Amino acid sequence: MDKMKDQWFGEDHNGTIEPKYTHTHWKIKKTLFTGQSPFQKLDFLESYDHGIIFTLDGLIMTSERDEFIYHEMLTHVSLYTHPDPKKVLVIGGGDCGALREILKHPAIEKIHLCEIDKMVVEKCEDIFPYVREVLKNPRIETFYEDGFHFLENNTNTYDIILVDSTDPIGEAVKLFEVPFLRLCYKALTADGMMVTQCGSPFYQTRFIKDLQRVMKSVFPLSQVYTASVHSYPGGYWGFLTGSRKYDPVKDFQVDKYRDLNFKYYNDLIHRAAFALPSYFVKQDS
Amino acid sequence: MDKMKDQWFGEDHNGTIEPKYTHTHWKIKKTLFTGQSPFQKLDFLESYDHGIIFTLDGLIMTSERDEFIYHEMLTHVSLYTHPDPKKVLVIGGGDCGALREILKHPAIEKIHLCEIDKMVVEKCEDIFPYVREVLKNPRIETFYEDGFHFLENNTNTYDIILVDSTDPIGEAVKLFEVPFLRLCYKALTADGMMVTQCGSPFYQTRFIKDLQRVMKSVFPLSQVYTASVHSYPGGYWGFLTGSRKYDPVKDFQVDKYRDLNFKYYNDLIHRAAFALPSYFVKQDS
Repeated sequence: MDKMKDQWFGEDHNGTIEPKYTHTHWKIKKTLFTGQSPFQKLDFLESYDHGIIFTLDGLIMTSERDEFIYHEMLTHVSLYTHPDPKKVLVIGGGDCGALREILKHPAIEKIHLCEIDKMVVEKCEDIFPYVREVLKNPRIETFYEDGFHFLENNTNTYDIILVDSTDPIGEAVKLFEVPFLRLCYKALTADGMMVTQCGSPFYQTRFIKDLQRVMKSVFPLSQVYTASVHSYPGGYWGFLTGSRKYDPVKDFQVDKYRDLNFKYYNDLIHRAAFALPSYFVKQDS
Repeated sequence: MDKMKDQWFGEDHNGTIEPKYTHTHWKIKKTLFTGQSPFQKLDFLESYDHGIIFTLDGLIMTSERDEFIYHEMLTHVSLYTHPDPKKVLVIGGGDCGALREILKHPAIEKIHLCEIDKMVVEKCEDIFPYVREVLKNPRIETFYEDGFHFLENNTNTYDIILVDSTDPIGEAVKLFEVPFLRLCYKALTADGMMVTQCGSPFYQTRFIKDLQRVMKSVFPLSQVYTASVHSYPGGYWGFLTGSRKYDPVKDFQVDKYRDLNFKYYNDLIHRAAFALPSYFVKQDS
């Protein structure tokens, strides 16, 4: 672990990703696994405060203590917007946290996971007990493929597509561009919607605004919502929706809302997540 | 600066404050000032990403890049809840960020600052250009006194009291206890309200819940609200209200709301700030 010094782990943005020189550091008890897949470097680090921290190429993907916040907010907002979702696709998300949350909805019949890196799923299965439980569920089907190619073979199939990707660096850049969003549009049913994580509204305002403009060139409706994900830079994270029909604020299925053992999400949080800071609203689109 | 290594600054919680072993690190260009007042150690550090960082006893008070978030949310929520505030007291807050925000409201006639540490105000005046502007304003009056003693001499005086204190360690502990809250109650007018910063809802859930119980033993109404303050641990901060009459959600003066050049606060953020995560709501009071 070249990025661990004195048993502390911190992301190194190398002066390229915002915030360039501001990083959270976690004190680490021990490294549980470190290895290289065909796609990326995987590390699982046991921290003092945040349970196990899972990183790809030195960037934090998830920490045991607060992953529920990211995964609940990635999934339940669209699942409580679409009035009758049955079939869901998750692209990326090999740690299976999004799958765990989707499974809480009894009406969901089929969940496909398209993860390019089999090693991520296998190692998460070794290390996180919930992953073993999730993958046993017969509603889950796993595909180890490139998301781009997977979508090319699916039309009018999914009610919801969730893009649970790494940040837009290297291979993941294409998941934030028009050709990919068009494939998502095509793979969705006529009233389907997609959600993608999109970075920090504070540090990456310009990037998110640009991405939303791209999303609006493909989907009739697109909104940004946020959550307090403490392990991510600045502790504040953005999600971008692209919807063929439903508006996650106006069409929020509040009458259907039930507390499915949520730890972060609830009906008030659903609405509040769409209130954006003035600096974000006022930034030119 | 014993807490700076290789020109990086990070808070050291010494394994006592939550999160014990998780800290943000800022790369620092240079130290602008370091000194000891009769009360605490002051440091002003110029960072790469966050402008000037101001710390007391090694804990971050404010960073130039995101102090507007903390100060807007400390002030405008109560100022847009009370229907006709005229006189405001700020306890602590020697960096004058709260004063700057209160001054945006033209109807406020008098703002008292009670700051125990004159050196904080003087050094902030040297270093932050806005402080010089704020202190010239004739609506501001400054008292260098202990907040506890200051309140003992004031009854039925203020429409709003804002406690802009350090964390509840050492001298500041008493600002979170019943005798102090009773003095605030007494110093408020019959329909007055107070707000205090209260720590991280994520890392210090138990502390905030306990503090709210204390607040409710003194004030008929008390609510928790939150903001994304990126420089504070976890990037998510809590504020606690104690109100003699007005409910900041139900009595929000939305018809009076005007954008006073806000960078974070707005009418949607006002309401959204009171939506709390399920883990916080479900924690026993």
